[in-house]
Amino acid sequence: MKEVLAIIRMNKINETKKALSESGFPAITCRRVYGRGKKKVDYELIEELIDGKMIKSKPIMESISEAHRLIAKRLLLMVVHDDEVDKVVDTIMAINSTGNMGDGKIFVCPVSDAIRVRTQETGECAL
Amino acid sequence: MKEVLAIIRMNKINETKKALSESGFPAITCRRVYGRGKKKVDYELIEELIDGKMIKSKPIMESISEAHRLIAKRLLLMVVHDDEVDKVVDTIMAINSTGNMGDGKIFVCPVSDAIRVRTQETGECAL
Amino acid sequence: MKEVLAIIRMNKINETKKALSESGFPAITCRRVYGRGKKKVDYELIEELIDGKMIKSKPIMESISEAHRLIAKRLLLMVVHDDEVDKVVDTIMAINSTGNMGDGKIFVCPVSDAIRVRTQETGECAL
Repeated sequence: MKEVLAIIRMNKINETKKALSESGFPAITCRRVYGRGKKKVDYELIEELIDGKMIKSKPIMESISEAHRLIAKRLLLMVVHDDEVDKVVDTIMAINSTGNMGDGKIFVCPVSDAIRVRTQETGECAL
Repeated sequence: MKEVLAIIRMNKINETKKALSESGFPAITCRRVYGRGKKKVDYELIEELIDGKMIKSKPIMESISEAHRLIAKRLLLMVVHDDEVDKVVDTIMAINSTGNMGDGKIFVCPVSDAIRVRTQETGECAL
Repeated sequence: MKEVLAIIRMNKINETKKALSESGFPAITCRRVYGRGKKKVDYELIEELIDGKMIKSKPIMESISEAHRLIAKRLLLMVVHDDEVDKVVDTIMAINSTGNMGDGKIFVCPVSDAIRVRTQETGECAL
């Protein structure tokens, strides 16, 4: 079994939950996180007008940049059977892939065991 | 060593923390999450009274169902030695297994390494 | 690729983010968690003055102890290439190792796959 961790945009959470549920994956854990990707502000592209002249100002650039700022995101955590990973990933991609920076990341991690607390079932049948 | 991730009811957190501490596992990280399991509302079981007649109404069923609603839960994260996993799981189960839907899930995941930041100890002795 | 989970002090987050970014690791996910380590209050070391006599009072000791109390912490989540783990860990250690209890823990976990949602890139090149 595998853990699927998806970091997505805040405003995509409801649509993603709905799509996962309709694809047969209702079980989900969700939390608010803050993150950033690799995006760096290209200071060459931003200029500041001082005294009528356009000059580059690194401190001002940094203050408006996202270089050290984290963006509110949603993190989804699901644990699914190995052969369901592709379908879960495809479902999340279909909703979240807008082609813009900040669409997010999905990580797939190994899981050794699962236990359903109510019934004490373990392993694959606890999913 | 293994990571034990337990998703439990909000109101079980204090009792669970206490039991884990008493069983020799004081080290714990806890966060508020929102989740749902596989529970789906059976629309056949719910009916709506309109104009004196009992009729099924899917939109109303959905609005009162938990099909797309997430429930506030607590997620516990612990990293323990391989031979301690069973004791940790049993301790969490003893407190959280009420026999009702929503008791939660426990996932056990492999961990490659651990580092204690204060002492720079690594591996098993960092736990 | 590996997941690096670091649980650090609240007041170290900005310095840590900056150091990681400067070391070439801007991509980070951060969340507020509550945790405790192995620290236990030694009731022998704390005494209470009642009626002019110093006597030990377990209930009062417990109420002021951290035995069952969780401390607000920050959890950082990063996924990096295998050969970058040491540099990430060293960067986090350099900022967070004060030599005092509560400096935190770092866990390194295996990751099976990564997917960049925007481009559908998978594996190592999605990091």
